Amino acid sequence: MLIHSAPQLLTIPGGPQRGRDLGELGIIENGALLIREEKIIEVGSTPELREKYPDEPTLDASGSVVMPGFIDPHTHLLWGGDRAREFEMRLEGAHYLDILKAGGGIISTVRDTRTASLESLLAQTRPRLMRMFATGTTTAEAKTGYGLQTATELRMLKALLALDNEGPIELAITFLGAHAIAPEYKDNPQGYTEHIVNEMLPIVHDWWDTHAPRRQRMPFVDVFCETGAFDLAQSRQILEKAAALGFPLKIHADEFDNLGGASLAAELGAASADHLVVTSDEDIAALANSETVAVSLPCTPFGLAHCDYTPAQKMLDAGVILAIATDCNPGTAWTESMQFPIALACRAMKLTPAQAIVAATINAAYAIRREDRVGSIEVGKQADLLLLSVADYRQLGYRFGTNLVKKVIKRGRVYSVDVGYYQTA
Amino acid sequence: MLIHSAPQLLTIPGGPQRGRDLGELGIIENGALLIREEKIIEVGSTPELREKYPDEPTLDASGSVVMPGFIDPHTHLLWGGDRAREFEMRLEGAHYLDILKAGGGIISTVRDTRTASLESLLAQTRPRLMRMFATGTTTAEAKTGYGLQTATELRMLKALLALDNEGPIELAITFLGAHAIAPEYKDNPQGYTEHIVNEMLPIVHDWWDTHAPRRQRMPFVDVFCETGAFDLAQSRQILEKAAALGFPLKIHADEFDNLGGASLAAELGAASADHLVVTSDEDIAALANSETVAVSLPCTPFGLAHCDYTPAQKMLDAGVILAIATDCNPGTAWTESMQFPIALACRAMKLTPAQAIVAATINAAYAIRREDRVGSIEVGKQADLLLLSVADYRQLGYRFGTNLVKKVIKRGRVYSVDVGYYQTA
Repeated sequence: MLIHSAPQLLTIPGGPQRGRDLGELGIIENGALLIREEKIIEVGSTPELREKYPDEPTLDASGSVVMPGFIDPHTHLLWGGDRAREFEMRLEGAHYLDILKAGGGIISTVRDTRTASLESLLAQTRPRLMRMFATGTTTAEAKTGYGLQTATELRMLKALLALDNEGPIELAITFLGAHAIAPEYKDNPQGYTEHIVNEMLPIVHDWWDTHAPRRQRMPFVDVFCETGAFDLAQSRQILEKAAALGFPLKIHADEFDNLGGASLAAELGAASADHLVVTSDEDIAALANSETVAVSLPCTPFGLAHCDYTPAQKMLDAGVILAIATDCNPGTAWTESMQFPIALACRAMKLTPAQAIVAATINAAYAIRREDRVGSIEVGKQADLLLLSVADYRQLGYRFGTNLVKKVIKRGRVYSVDVGYYQTA
Repeated sequence: MLIHSAPQLLTIPGGPQRGRDLGELGIIENGALLIREEKIIEVGSTPELREKYPDEPTLDASGSVVMPGFIDPHTHLLWGGDRAREFEMRLEGAHYLDILKAGGGIISTVRDTRTASLESLLAQTRPRLMRMFATGTTTAEAKTGYGLQTATELRMLKALLALDNEGPIELAITFLGAHAIAPEYKDNPQGYTEHIVNEMLPIVHDWWDTHAPRRQRMPFVDVFCETGAFDLAQSRQILEKAAALGFPLKIHADEFDNLGGASLAAELGAASADHLVVTSDEDIAALANSETVAVSLPCTPFGLAHCDYTPAQKMLDAGVILAIATDCNPGTAWTESMQFPIALACRAMKLTPAQAIVAATINAAYAIRREDRVGSIEVGKQADLLLLSVADYRQLGYRFGTNLVKKVIKRGRVYSVDVGYYQTA
């Protein structure tokens, strides 16, 4: 199929973009590309490709920016229940302790996830995946971490494998048994750390070997390195064991307190360090000298009505590889659309639309180490593409709160998204 | 038609809600309502209404909150061109003066609107109306104000009447010739004020008499009372003349500087005073003692990455009638979805979801003085309704960046919104 007449075709060529190189869109005006089966075969100008492939079936992209599908490199996609009542209580002035007493906070999601069957978890999560896809996400990272006990964590892994298999979104799966201290170890974080290291990680390793289809790579292992969760030594203990078992690594760091998690990630060669709000200059330097992607999650401070965001300009100055993600989760940031962190990144972190788009595509792909297959429009890559309802990429970021995606192409298959349109029932 | 089995039917009864009374949703669990032609005939519980009307055609609302359509009481809906390039320049660090030199700012929209034909203005605006409707707005206010000269302002009025006539969204039209100082009067704001008072307002009055269909009420007359636009004396001069001609009134006040515009609005009996970020305690007291609705526009500080929002809690304490709107416009806040100011109002102004919903329905209807026909689910009102894709109203506000509306019913006609869903093309 020949997709042609795109006023702007964003190729985003050449792999991840580091530091101040961020923002190279590789725009072809009046662009076209040839896709066959799942792959991108050729990219060029419309006159050129139309002449070369006169008999190819066509898809007219007039009036539409054509760009790579969004990669969402940090989500907590899978959970049971919701925390809408807790959200309301906070606005009614309830204190944190009242909310805990009423059964709120992350532990309420853990409870609702532990008691949910596999089928129920799948049913609750599918609408979220549908919204992600309809807003342009074609590949997403997705974590466990609302089990905090082996059986539920494995059920979450099973659910994520099932959802990846259903498609159309491909999932990069992460084991986050170290999301919080399990309630059973409430006063003994070191005990839970040992439990993860000595029991959960080896079990997950063997389970994955048996249950994951061959095309799924090893899951990432991730740790919430934060006051009240895992301290730096515990985070190191977990990640070093994971690395020894062959897992690739991720870390949640510097959301509220600076514990040195970002430097740890760089030292251990983690694929990414995520959140990064109160990151120190030393940590930024460590990231800049590594292949660890800094994944900023601007929806989280937004969701919490905080004023501090990732110091993106400092990071770009230092030479960090910057990506953005939704952090979709039931506590602080329930949004499925990558278009919203793009709009936030422009305002709260002063990225240009072009920079935010790269941070949401090829750099995001690198944060889940899939930059070889997705995140750009280059020959040989998977045909994961978006047609926008606008003709200028800068409308992303500039506009907010609605969906500018019109068609999503996943592995060469075209889906229409009827957003902003309606019909008589 | 009998709409039944709504887990929550939000009736929002009893008219506008003042001060701390804000937030009364009048929820009927397992609710139902009977609509015939354009009207709401009966409201009650599902068992009751199903027994009473066994042969009525039905619409099953299982799993869906049923609520009144959103009323957006402040938009600049109609304009030519866009300012995406200007948005990018600002993020690249361009100074305000560079942007002005490059032809940016409101005057660029004035230029693009003046040079656009009626047909072009309609074509550029329809997709915005479509997005508004698909995100649940069933009635919207819409202003002129990108002409700043009689001919273009009348063309904008003509366009707004045409769009209102096309439907499905009904428009409450506002004449905002006093949106900015016209470029022809750049150094003579008083001269432009006199021009509005002595020429434009009488012409608009007579034009409306001839051109508006009978069912359209007189348009509002609105003034941008702000440093650099119209000072308090000029605002008073324009609004007093408008009142003398029989126009109902609105005002833009306290967006950046406190000039006393809100008190002026209260004194003159304006339907609303809008923006209200730097509003003084005296102004708040004046609003509290009036029927002038305070219309907060949280998307504007968000769009500008400012940290100050309407002091909503103070206003509720004082007894003000509070509403929210999108302020949809090409400069500071291009969003069509009322769900986004709801999410912002919860975070930046600490409204509960229930308060934000009332501010976006019956109180918003009162800000355009249509509370007699829309904004609640009560017998005799127009059947302007939403079915959400969620079963709990608190999901509005709690979640952000996507569309939770599933069906929109306008004057009894049902429209399906396929948002978050997709199909193979």
